[in-house]
Amino acid sequence: MRKTENQLLVIFGASGDLTARKLVPALYKLYKDKHLPEHFAVLGVARSFMTDEEFRKRVALESKYLDDSEEFIAAFSEKLFYEDLHKKYDVDYRELNERIQDLNTTYQCDNNIIFYLSTPPSLFEAIAKNLTAKGLNDERLGWKRLIVEKPFGYSLETAKSLNEGLHRYFKESQIYRIDHYLGKETVQNILVTRFANSIFEPLWNRDYIHHVEITNAESGGVESRGGYYDKSGALRDMFQSHLLQLVALIVMEPPLSANPEEIRNEKMKALKSLRLMTDPKVLEKNTIRGQYLASEIEGEKVKGYREEVDVDPDSTTETYAAVKFYVDNWRWADVPFYVRTAKRMPTKVTEVVIHFKSPHHQIFKNSDMNKDNKLIIRIQPDEGILVKFGVKVPGQGFAVERGNLDFYYESLGDESHIMEAYERLLLDAMQGDATLYARADEVEAAWRFTDPILDHWKKGDAKIYGYSAGVWGPQHADELIEGKSMWRNPCENLADDAGYCVIE
Amino acid sequence: MRKTENQLLVIFGASGDLTARKLVPALYKLYKDKHLPEHFAVLGVARSFMTDEEFRKRVALESKYLDDSEEFIAAFSEKLFYEDLHKKYDVDYRELNERIQDLNTTYQCDNNIIFYLSTPPSLFEAIAKNLTAKGLNDERLGWKRLIVEKPFGYSLETAKSLNEGLHRYFKESQIYRIDHYLGKETVQNILVTRFANSIFEPLWNRDYIHHVEITNAESGGVESRGGYYDKSGALRDMFQSHLLQLVALIVMEPPLSANPEEIRNEKMKALKSLRLMTDPKVLEKNTIRGQYLASEIEGEKVKGYREEVDVDPDSTTETYAAVKFYVDNWRWADVPFYVRTAKRMPTKVTEVVIHFKSPHHQIFKNSDMNKDNKLIIRIQPDEGILVKFGVKVPGQGFAVERGNLDFYYESLGDESHIMEAYERLLLDAMQGDATLYARADEVEAAWRFTDPILDHWKKGDAKIYGYSAGVWGPQHADELIEGKSMWRNPCENLADDAGYCVIE
Repeated sequence: MRKTENQLLVIFGASGDLTARKLVPALYKLYKDKHLPEHFAVLGVARSFMTDEEFRKRVALESKYLDDSEEFIAAFSEKLFYEDLHKKYDVDYRELNERIQDLNTTYQCDNNIIFYLSTPPSLFEAIAKNLTAKGLNDERLGWKRLIVEKPFGYSLETAKSLNEGLHRYFKESQIYRIDHYLGKETVQNILVTRFANSIFEPLWNRDYIHHVEITNAESGGVESRGGYYDKSGALRDMFQSHLLQLVALIVMEPPLSANPEEIRNEKMKALKSLRLMTDPKVLEKNTIRGQYLASEIEGEKVKGYREEVDVDPDSTTETYAAVKFYVDNWRWADVPFYVRTAKRMPTKVTEVVIHFKSPHHQIFKNSDMNKDNKLIIRIQPDEGILVKFGVKVPGQGFAVERGNLDFYYESLGDESHIMEAYERLLLDAMQGDATLYARADEVEAAWRFTDPILDHWKKGDAKIYGYSAGVWGPQHADELIEGKSMWRNPCENLADDAGYCVIE
Repeated sequence: MRKTENQLLVIFGASGDLTARKLVPALYKLYKDKHLPEHFAVLGVARSFMTDEEFRKRVALESKYLDDSEEFIAAFSEKLFYEDLHKKYDVDYRELNERIQDLNTTYQCDNNIIFYLSTPPSLFEAIAKNLTAKGLNDERLGWKRLIVEKPFGYSLETAKSLNEGLHRYFKESQIYRIDHYLGKETVQNILVTRFANSIFEPLWNRDYIHHVEITNAESGGVESRGGYYDKSGALRDMFQSHLLQLVALIVMEPPLSANPEEIRNEKMKALKSLRLMTDPKVLEKNTIRGQYLASEIEGEKVKGYREEVDVDPDSTTETYAAVKFYVDNWRWADVPFYVRTAKRMPTKVTEVVIHFKSPHHQIFKNSDMNKDNKLIIRIQPDEGILVKFGVKVPGQGFAVERGNLDFYYESLGDESHIMEAYERLLLDAMQGDATLYARADEVEAAWRFTDPILDHWKKGDAKIYGYSAGVWGPQHADELIEGKSMWRNPCENLADDAGYCVIE
């Protein structure tokens, strides 16, 4: 167990949804599980006027943890404070600094401070600058760390400028770019599956793998986020960040050690090895975007994307994105990767499917491609690992059918000890472990790959396919896949195989 | 579905236990499942005097299949006949031949005849000779097949002389040497697991496999078979036949096709590749024999082997045998194989454990050998396949614990359609498929490997270790295994890992 040093956590944008819904509950769980240091305090900062008491009420821990005693919750809540920041920067930051120094002294935080920026990215640089003006980036008396929330940039250019802006005031080693996908146990377990076992890595290359498929499906639509989403779209919202991080973990070479920099070096190398697509013809052939159309799901009418609140009725923003690409390195040459992300799919699921090649030589009758071995890594829900393999049909001869070798996380027992992504990530940052945070160069590499696709789509030549809400995307998406294979359209339960259903 | 031609089945030794307990029930099940041809008849032959009716009563189908109507059972029973064979051979066989010709004509068996020799091996040659004298090996008008029951020989010499004796009268292609282990679905599935999948075979060699372990444990003692067993012992009873057949399926190279001769050619090559041990020092070091001692199991007193009925009180016959050996070919060089078989073990189980090497490079803390990957092929009970692999312990860092990827045959659904070993093997022989029967050269190769061990033990220099009935054999057996590894001492349920329990 690593030690968590005494510290102060300052949350910018503390009146927002994330603080009440994720950050404070994560801190409370860490407190309850005795992961927090002896001396700590939390200072919420935002534009609204609020007293400490009002801030404590706003996060409403009492209503979330009915099993815990009021006294216990109060003992934690007493460490929560609030400071408004709404006037002029110089006055604000002087007051803020005074409050920070005061809490640091009162609560013996040893001058260790995390600044959590849960604000629009446009404010990142200004906050960093103002903190610096008050000497709050100075690590001589205690460390200072900056956690920034996604989206980290809107394009390669904006991401670079964000990085440059932050680097003017903070060192890269002080900056923690959160990607809550990396906080998921199932995502981290990709590394353990690959590198703590001797049976997977020998198969993990172009000699044995036919293609790799990653599906991220949401069953919901844009809900109340139409305004944000219409400016972002599926590719920026999911693909550039979470899904390319997953790709990096699948693609990467074994790191020298489990050290954060070694792992991030290999992930960076993986992202750099994705073959950039810039030729419009290549982009046209290898990317597909779509938008969900009004439909009826289980008797209920569902709006089309362009009818959603705060969405432009002529919007060309994609709610479905599928990208086929190659990885230009020794291990993966010629192995196609298919990655798709979409809203209004039949089920909510994220999974990686490693499709293995057919046996070299067909001894038994087993020629159907869909019968080939697959390793399915389920990120969510019904978290687990499934290996589809051939077993003998009982009876005479050697007919082959599919069997499942399966593992479920719930088999590991008491799940109450599994940390939520935000708990895990916060605690890591509090302890200075950046393994699960994205480095500047990683983020830029992911944008470098994504940018040309966004540009191509922006030009408007690329078709936008409509698909009925509640089906597996536009029919055209099947044509993306080479040969006889199809998308695996998964079900809620890992082992239930909807098979390679024809898209309606 | 292959066609089963009209035929007559003649069972020698029909008054014995096997006929009533296994053969006739197997035929009845085949009849019920409509696998038998339109025209067939069964003629039981033995020394006892019995009428057809008495023979039908003796097999007592009515008492075994209470759910089936009397009429249905009677329709099958009417195809059962009996002929005694007790006087002089020439008279007997003349009468027998007349009966066979009569049944063949009456029941339109098209001159196709199987002779099932469920008799002591000492009678095999004489029966073959007498059948030949009556022209019953002649295939011009219809095929003739000979099924022989184990034990096939008592040593290499006796097996060779048996083969020579049979080959004087029947061609090898007419002879079916039954090994009911090969009739088991789980045993046949070893071939499918290896060769219908692309993910196992690349790992199936010295580069990835550390050692192979095969355990065959019986919880019972010798029961009523003391007389037979004391002359045989664990090595002859199980190792030379069933277990070396399992070894052959694990060791063999991919066959050109699923054709019976191709598979048997590869099994033969596998058996030939086992490194013969002839040096007494090598034998002393690599083989262990034991005998169970009187003990109390769950409060019940259990006799020691030497106290059993019909067992010599000074017997040196082994009830426990463990053999370590190497396979001299490209694939398996330097990989130790550990095979053990014993009576009076804590549980009844047969399984193969493929122990994989540790990951080349330890990125995470995972240095314990017992944490390495294992593929467990469970032959019986709780039939299935289990892969032990490393998963991430939920929480911070990258601690690794063991997870199970498991497959159970029962997941394939309705087990009532799975044929019993004898049903399967009889039907194969009726259809002329010899895949699951041992060829003469295979049997001899297995004896060639087993003989020197038996000889070494016979000389009496080798120690016989005692072990209490109900424990995992003599303590000394652990020393057989190289390095830090130990026997996996399995439980009744495949996934329950008794772990590497210290042998009491």
